[in-house]
Amino acid sequence: MDHFADRLFEAVKEKGSPVCVGIDPVLERLPLSLQKGDAVDGITQFTQGVLHAVAEHVPCVKFQSACFERYHWRGVEAYHRLIHEAKQLGLIVIADAKRGDIGISAAHYAAGCLSDIDLGDGETLLGPDALTINSYLGGDSIEPFIEVAASQGKGLFVLVRTSNPGGDQLQALALAEGGQVVDQVAGMVAKLGESHLGEGGLSLLGSVVGATKVADAARLRAMMPQQIFLVPGFGAQGGSADDVKVCFCADGTGAIITASRSVLYPFDPADENWTQAVAAAALDLNQQIATVLG
Amino acid sequence: MDHFADRLFEAVKEKGSPVCVGIDPVLERLPLSLQKGDAVDGITQFTQGVLHAVAEHVPCVKFQSACFERYHWRGVEAYHRLIHEAKQLGLIVIADAKRGDIGISAAHYAAGCLSDIDLGDGETLLGPDALTINSYLGGDSIEPFIEVAASQGKGLFVLVRTSNPGGDQLQALALAEGGQVVDQVAGMVAKLGESHLGEGGLSLLGSVVGATKVADAARLRAMMPQQIFLVPGFGAQGGSADDVKVCFCADGTGAIITASRSVLYPFDPADENWTQAVAAAALDLNQQIATVLG
Repeated sequence: MDHFADRLFEAVKEKGSPVCVGIDPVLERLPLSLQKGDAVDGITQFTQGVLHAVAEHVPCVKFQSACFERYHWRGVEAYHRLIHEAKQLGLIVIADAKRGDIGISAAHYAAGCLSDIDLGDGETLLGPDALTINSYLGGDSIEPFIEVAASQGKGLFVLVRTSNPGGDQLQALALAEGGQVVDQVAGMVAKLGESHLGEGGLSLLGSVVGATKVADAARLRAMMPQQIFLVPGFGAQGGSADDVKVCFCADGTGAIITASRSVLYPFDPADENWTQAVAAAALDLNQQIATVLG
Repeated sequence: MDHFADRLFEAVKEKGSPVCVGIDPVLERLPLSLQKGDAVDGITQFTQGVLHAVAEHVPCVKFQSACFERYHWRGVEAYHRLIHEAKQLGLIVIADAKRGDIGISAAHYAAGCLSDIDLGDGETLLGPDALTINSYLGGDSIEPFIEVAASQGKGLFVLVRTSNPGGDQLQALALAEGGQVVDQVAGMVAKLGESHLGEGGLSLLGSVVGATKVADAARLRAMMPQQIFLVPGFGAQGGSADDVKVCFCADGTGAIITASRSVLYPFDPADENWTQAVAAAALDLNQQIATVLG
């Protein structure tokens, strides 16, 4: 099973959950014991704790690249090594780096962000399974990413409708021909992805659609029947479980619900058994989503 | 002189040129002698050669982050060390990383991409002077970048109108209220930047406006009178010197013309005196722009 979409929904089926835990380690929110020493060591240990706590409960994790790039190349090395560790735990890994550029630069980003890393001496770090990318530069900025992803059996999630209030400023603009900007982006993504389908009928080219934009989600689902929706904004950002239901396809596949803060930081910072709270929060999220999907 | 716009145009005045050399090192295009060994060593030596060749001729260089991220953390370390080296040569440095995210992630990108780096033992690497960012997530995704940039006397360039053909797909959509998507983005950037002006009247928040979009550039110049335009697409991408003239303010400031391939790769790959060809290409570009502005 080499296609990203097939691998992803096989993992969803195995775990019985379409939940993705966002790995967004922020130093000031870590358990106190991990805030004291070197910052990169702290976020590394925290991430390892989270990965081991959630690996048996969820199919998928999403690494927020910014949290690691904050610490320059040491952070970037930790990021790649932790992605490898997550892969070894059997998790599907999405790199949330929101890259966007044109031509050879887009191809460089795709290779750098998705490919396995040869460390020499026969050692290889596994790259992530998918990458988030930005749509503002248009279709020819997305094609180099598709080329790399397709050649490696990997996936992409294009920012279509973001969960933040400011996303409306550009994405919700009304067009002269009818509809909104986001509809044109959705059409572009649907078109670009249609020749890259897995056996389950879903494309390697997915979409980010915020759970806080429920009014748009049903329309976008109809416009992008072959796109996997990566749905942020559930929980801390205000999206409800009912809001996310419309993001799924009729067969119950087609969407991954991602949550970061509500799963990462459910503990008292002084509590040394914080990983138990993280595991419980992941299970609680699973339960909330399962209830909605019925 | 602490404001980015003032520092930039003081450097333009000193060098007598508004040219920015794009540092986009691609292994396959390097002088043959630099293609043979380790890739990161090759692009590092190439970049050092280019920086020394152009530093006395141009005020500004722009580092394409993708070319370094391609090589993961080793590439990222080289990128930061080369930015420091460019700063030591007296160049204004723009980090072309096109980042975009929301909330704490945007703040993390801003800090990671712009700040000086404390290496311990009293050693510090100077960060770049400015960063390119993406606009698709709206104003609240730009504000955290402004906060960091303002606190450090640094600048930002928001992608408004990109130079690639596919940019039209989203940026040129006609709006129900009249105008195009790009006009709304321009208005948003003008508004966000208006309280961050230098002594010369230009904002720390600038715009990327492609030289290949000359029909838009004059309109955008009028809509964003306080924005510095970073203008790619001249030369290799097809923009002419006349096309870029409309990007400047009436006083001859306000725009930086950036070129990568035409300056980086004017040599025969077998030529060992390639840095002379790079310096000559930079001088030639200066001359072309001076003729237009003259």
